[in-house]
Amino acid sequence: MKGLEYIFRPKSVAVIGASTHKGTIGHEILHNIIINEFNGKVFPVNPKATVIHSIKCYSTILDVPDSVDMAVIVVPREFVCDVAEQCGQKGVKGLVVISAGFKEVGGAGIKLEDNLVDIVHKYNMRMIGPNCFGIVNTEPEISLNCTFGKTKALPGKVGFISQSGGLGEAIMNHAQELGLGFSMVASIGNKADVSTNDILEFWEDDPQTDIILLYLENFGNPRHFTRIAREISPNKPIVAVKSGRTRQGAAAASSHTGALAELDVGVDALLDQCGVLRVSSIEELFDVAAAMSNQPIPKGNRVAIVSNAGGPALLATDALVGLGMNLAPYAGGTKARLKKALSGIGDVHNPLDLVAGAGGEHFKSALSVIKDDRNFDSIFIIFVPPVTINQMEVAQSILDGIKGCKKTVLVCFMGAGEGSEAIAYLKKHHLPVYIFPEAVAKTLSQIDIYRRWLERPKGHPRIFKSDKKKVQEILNQAVAKREKAVVGKEALEILEAYGIPTAKYHIAFDENKAVQAAEEAGYPVVLKVNSPQILHKTEFGAVMVDLRNGKEVKAAFNSLRKKLPPLKINEKYSVVIQEMVTGGVETVIGMTTDPSFGPLIMFGLGGIYVEILKDVAFRINPLSDIDVDEMIGGLKSYPLLTGYRGSEPIDMTVLKESLLRLSQLVGDFDQISEIDINPFIACHAKGKSKAVDARFIIRQS
Amino acid sequence: MKGLEYIFRPKSVAVIGASTHKGTIGHEILHNIIINEFNGKVFPVNPKATVIHSIKCYSTILDVPDSVDMAVIVVPREFVCDVAEQCGQKGVKGLVVISAGFKEVGGAGIKLEDNLVDIVHKYNMRMIGPNCFGIVNTEPEISLNCTFGKTKALPGKVGFISQSGGLGEAIMNHAQELGLGFSMVASIGNKADVSTNDILEFWEDDPQTDIILLYLENFGNPRHFTRIAREISPNKPIVAVKSGRTRQGAAAASSHTGALAELDVGVDALLDQCGVLRVSSIEELFDVAAAMSNQPIPKGNRVAIVSNAGGPALLATDALVGLGMNLAPYAGGTKARLKKALSGIGDVHNPLDLVAGAGGEHFKSALSVIKDDRNFDSIFIIFVPPVTINQMEVAQSILDGIKGCKKTVLVCFMGAGEGSEAIAYLKKHHLPVYIFPEAVAKTLSQIDIYRRWLERPKGHPRIFKSDKKKVQEILNQAVAKREKAVVGKEALEILEAYGIPTAKYHIAFDENKAVQAAEEAGYPVVLKVNSPQILHKTEFGAVMVDLRNGKEVKAAFNSLRKKLPPLKINEKYSVVIQEMVTGGVETVIGMTTDPSFGPLIMFGLGGIYVEILKDVAFRINPLSDIDVDEMIGGLKSYPLLTGYRGSEPIDMTVLKESLLRLSQLVGDFDQISEIDINPFIACHAKGKSKAVDARFIIRQS
Repeated sequence: MKGLEYIFRPKSVAVIGASTHKGTIGHEILHNIIINEFNGKVFPVNPKATVIHSIKCYSTILDVPDSVDMAVIVVPREFVCDVAEQCGQKGVKGLVVISAGFKEVGGAGIKLEDNLVDIVHKYNMRMIGPNCFGIVNTEPEISLNCTFGKTKALPGKVGFISQSGGLGEAIMNHAQELGLGFSMVASIGNKADVSTNDILEFWEDDPQTDIILLYLENFGNPRHFTRIAREISPNKPIVAVKSGRTRQGAAAASSHTGALAELDVGVDALLDQCGVLRVSSIEELFDVAAAMSNQPIPKGNRVAIVSNAGGPALLATDALVGLGMNLAPYAGGTKARLKKALSGIGDVHNPLDLVAGAGGEHFKSALSVIKDDRNFDSIFIIFVPPVTINQMEVAQSILDGIKGCKKTVLVCFMGAGEGSEAIAYLKKHHLPVYIFPEAVAKTLSQIDIYRRWLERPKGHPRIFKSDKKKVQEILNQAVAKREKAVVGKEALEILEAYGIPTAKYHIAFDENKAVQAAEEAGYPVVLKVNSPQILHKTEFGAVMVDLRNGKEVKAAFNSLRKKLPPLKINEKYSVVIQEMVTGGVETVIGMTTDPSFGPLIMFGLGGIYVEILKDVAFRINPLSDIDVDEMIGGLKSYPLLTGYRGSEPIDMTVLKESLLRLSQLVGDFDQISEIDINPFIACHAKGKSKAVDARFIIRQS
Repeated sequence: MKGLEYIFRPKSVAVIGASTHKGTIGHEILHNIIINEFNGKVFPVNPKATVIHSIKCYSTILDVPDSVDMAVIVVPREFVCDVAEQCGQKGVKGLVVISAGFKEVGGAGIKLEDNLVDIVHKYNMRMIGPNCFGIVNTEPEISLNCTFGKTKALPGKVGFISQSGGLGEAIMNHAQELGLGFSMVASIGNKADVSTNDILEFWEDDPQTDIILLYLENFGNPRHFTRIAREISPNKPIVAVKSGRTRQGAAAASSHTGALAELDVGVDALLDQCGVLRVSSIEELFDVAAAMSNQPIPKGNRVAIVSNAGGPALLATDALVGLGMNLAPYAGGTKARLKKALSGIGDVHNPLDLVAGAGGEHFKSALSVIKDDRNFDSIFIIFVPPVTINQMEVAQSILDGIKGCKKTVLVCFMGAGEGSEAIAYLKKHHLPVYIFPEAVAKTLSQIDIYRRWLERPKGHPRIFKSDKKKVQEILNQAVAKREKAVVGKEALEILEAYGIPTAKYHIAFDENKAVQAAEEAGYPVVLKVNSPQILHKTEFGAVMVDLRNGKEVKAAFNSLRKKLPPLKINEKYSVVIQEMVTGGVETVIGMTTDPSFGPLIMFGLGGIYVEILKDVAFRINPLSDIDVDEMIGGLKSYPLLTGYRGSEPIDMTVLKESLLRLSQLVGDFDQISEIDINPFIACHAKGKSKAVDARFIIRQS
């Protein structure tokens, strides 16, 4: 047995802090273990009792005569370390520490938690918690429920990990009402030892668990998470609610890209890249889980609606179409077959509105035709029970109608009332039932995201020739000069070293040198002030564009000087002369470092698209070719790149390569914490697309 | 008594088609009337029975000895007209026709419905239906439920109108589960006589009804609806689900603006302009109704969260902030008072996370402080019931804590389980309770939309001097020439006649005239081909811009000619010369006619903003000054108009006036069905903003 086996599949469990007082946690846990008929031995431990729940109680775990695999600890926090020490001495392999008052309260709790972890490590134990709600394993051979909730978990194929203890009971209760069964449940609390990642690994090959649900507040080791999740997702869907979307971004970002990343794009990118379906509420989490644990993943997004009421069918249609699902037309022959099967019906089309007063027979007839229509991947059944129809008969007919159906089938029983027998019957036969049509639509669209991820081709990173040494020299120089950023000429040289094309760049200290530089660059040119004082040159009016001859260059050189604030001592006025890249689309390529996820690469179109419309894509580094395709193609402003209103499409090859080259650069240099390439002008003609300006922020060590 | 009084407050009701067979509609309706203890007389009518439900049954309504105010008709459709005729003869004032098979099935049903309406009109009756679910009035003096559903409606302050019969029962069932009480319910079916508008008018002054809920599939008379809704909304919130969002737009639109209006922007604009809150599902409809019928409308969007669990508080925060609500900080003194009230708590901030194991006393203490904090408009309480806490005690303490509170208070009891006594207790005391924090957040944000509508200043239309005669002449000429559209010079003249500034426009048939025209317009100029064959001139390359002298004009004149397809016989090559409006922001102003709502005015920024990002605003004509402010200010691309990255703000006065002037033009000429002004270039300098091109589509009569 591995470490976590002892926790989730123990042969014997001690409850340290078990209590005779009803309503206390120590009582409820022991009670739950017993009433759920745990298949192993249970030993209550409490120095103040001799019998609890008719079971002999021991003063300390050391007094238990048998060996103990796992101990649940519910004593006050000041005793936890002593008790854990005794567990170690006893040879206990796993701990579930319910007791709270550790890292989550700060102060002395932090020290206490550190001590506890030391003890766990010393004895080579594994520990869930502290500050958790407990764990559940519904396997009949185990049947362990050491939570303190009132709810009995139904057996099923869903593994659930909750980072919030408070949500534990709420979630189990809701699952029970929905009839959703769990294989195992783990409330992991402070994650002092066992993390989400550990449990994911444990469930990867667990035959009892087909789907994994997560409630997360933060990631312990996101890189580790990514690796595990990528391995699991193709075989077992992982669905997650990640809260704390709006708490981020408190730290000031020193780059443009960093500022854009303030929303939790890192989490979105991470989950998306490793195939984890992110939903936005606990309600959606369960709606999706009910579908995925009972029905196959559809092969496409084409939905057939069969309804006995027009209103709900309309609401369903609105919701589906709004979510990008496809209410495909019937395949050839289906209409005729439907009309025959539903004699007397008028025109038939998707969504199918059965006649008012449609009963079981109508549903059965319609479904037995539609289930074979190759134009659909899923069937969405809506039944609004009129008093004149027997609900149970309809439920049975629905099951008859879809017999042998390979499509995904979800059911909406609207207004059937609490405790409907028909709903329970359908659920028992693995047809998920929802109250509102919108929930079904949302669920279908969520599963479709997962399907598309499954079908997505595997991406590959690419390796380009690069001058790593040159970049290292530039960075070393900057560090030697204690500069926070590399800008201007050196910044473009870094890009050049990795094969990202840049606009020619010269510095000139007098008007004649400026003209000379302009001639080297080739007219028209751009002239900018060369001063680290002025970061946003355009707003300052410190950029003159489209200079077409020497006269204009000289005039610009002199007029810019007048706009400048007084120079510092030892500072000499100078300008940058750059070839002017025209006729392209301004884009922005960037990188920012997320404290948890590491480098994130950004891409978007320049100006208002980035700054006001926030139309940007983020991906976690390293990028694959598929990542780059999606980053570019997923932008709302993408049509501007492919030739909008008669303009020519940009050279996509060089743009994509530039992103991949940047990804390689980022992977090679941990020292770089943020990058803005702004603008990278993407042009139609080969060899014309170029980075015009760049900034690298260097990590201060 | 007015017409609808007889239907909703009858003193005597006949049920024509009442039946002794359980499970039939004719049986269930009579049954519902009786078990709901209707306070008047009931007369079953059925020639085949003598007694139903212990009540004497009559062969026809003419046999009833007493007078009858209202008759419910449930006979097969072929008998409905005869029965209605008898009702008229009997002096019945109101009909509720449940029977189906009329307009909704087409064919003979249409004729039958027309006949029925004729009879209703002949006898000066009012009729709800046919093809409806029935009506309810819970007033204790009436207590009428003539639906065929199984659900008893709870008394309350909510009036509900459903256009879908199928949804009727589903909705009443859901309301009962939520504990939501109704004043009256009306399922209006085919609306052959009584419409949504009629019932709205009836409820406007009804003291029993404080909130009105609507489920709509279409609008009978939207202009009438607008007038009534605008009158009611300031006093009684109207909340609507309008389905069929995605069915529209099937008809091809012949203008740009028309194509953009394909989503049901007309409905959104209409509901928004008259203060009707549009929600996107039945679930939201009830969530909002529960809040509005029990709690005051908050005075602002500042929310305080008080929770006994961190996870749900995080989810709530995410949802609220994502919806634009404000988790304001505590006012001065609140922190200190909270720390005192909650002795032993660490740092306190909004959202307030009470200590683990917080019970009633903690909630009471926290709420009694926060209820007086002037920084908040609403309080969002989250309780996740741990088994160790008595839920009822918490519920009571919450009520104690908010005693005298003037703020809006909503509660989330997550995972309390079905049939929780504590939840029932809170609901009874007018505290709406929700299962998920996201539902509370969504509800608060929906109510906030209504609050902002209430606070919105009343807009005023403006009347400008205009040359109506000139426009009429241009339109008459076009009609005489059988032209579908007015374009080019004439189109700009229409705008000029209403004071909308336009760019000078000349037509030239040879290169010398072109130069002459360019000199009149003033360089630089734009030269376009003058051909009705080429609508999208830019894509065709048929526009040459920034011509700076006669030479360039001549060259452009000749090069354009070569690009053209062969001219038709009698067609002579000519070009348009226009002054070039530079340095402004391209905008698009348009109008399209919605078949239900009439003219809709559109505004957006040109190019990609309109075409790809669909960043446009629609309003129903006529526009007020406030409408125009909101149309412009609500665009995502609005910052481009106010000076983006150092560019100067545009002349907002002339832009707003141009929209108002267009509104006046649209009001004056019913003949115009669509307008595109594209582009209207909005410039900074006074007198520089101008319409450059326009198209008017003329209604074919």
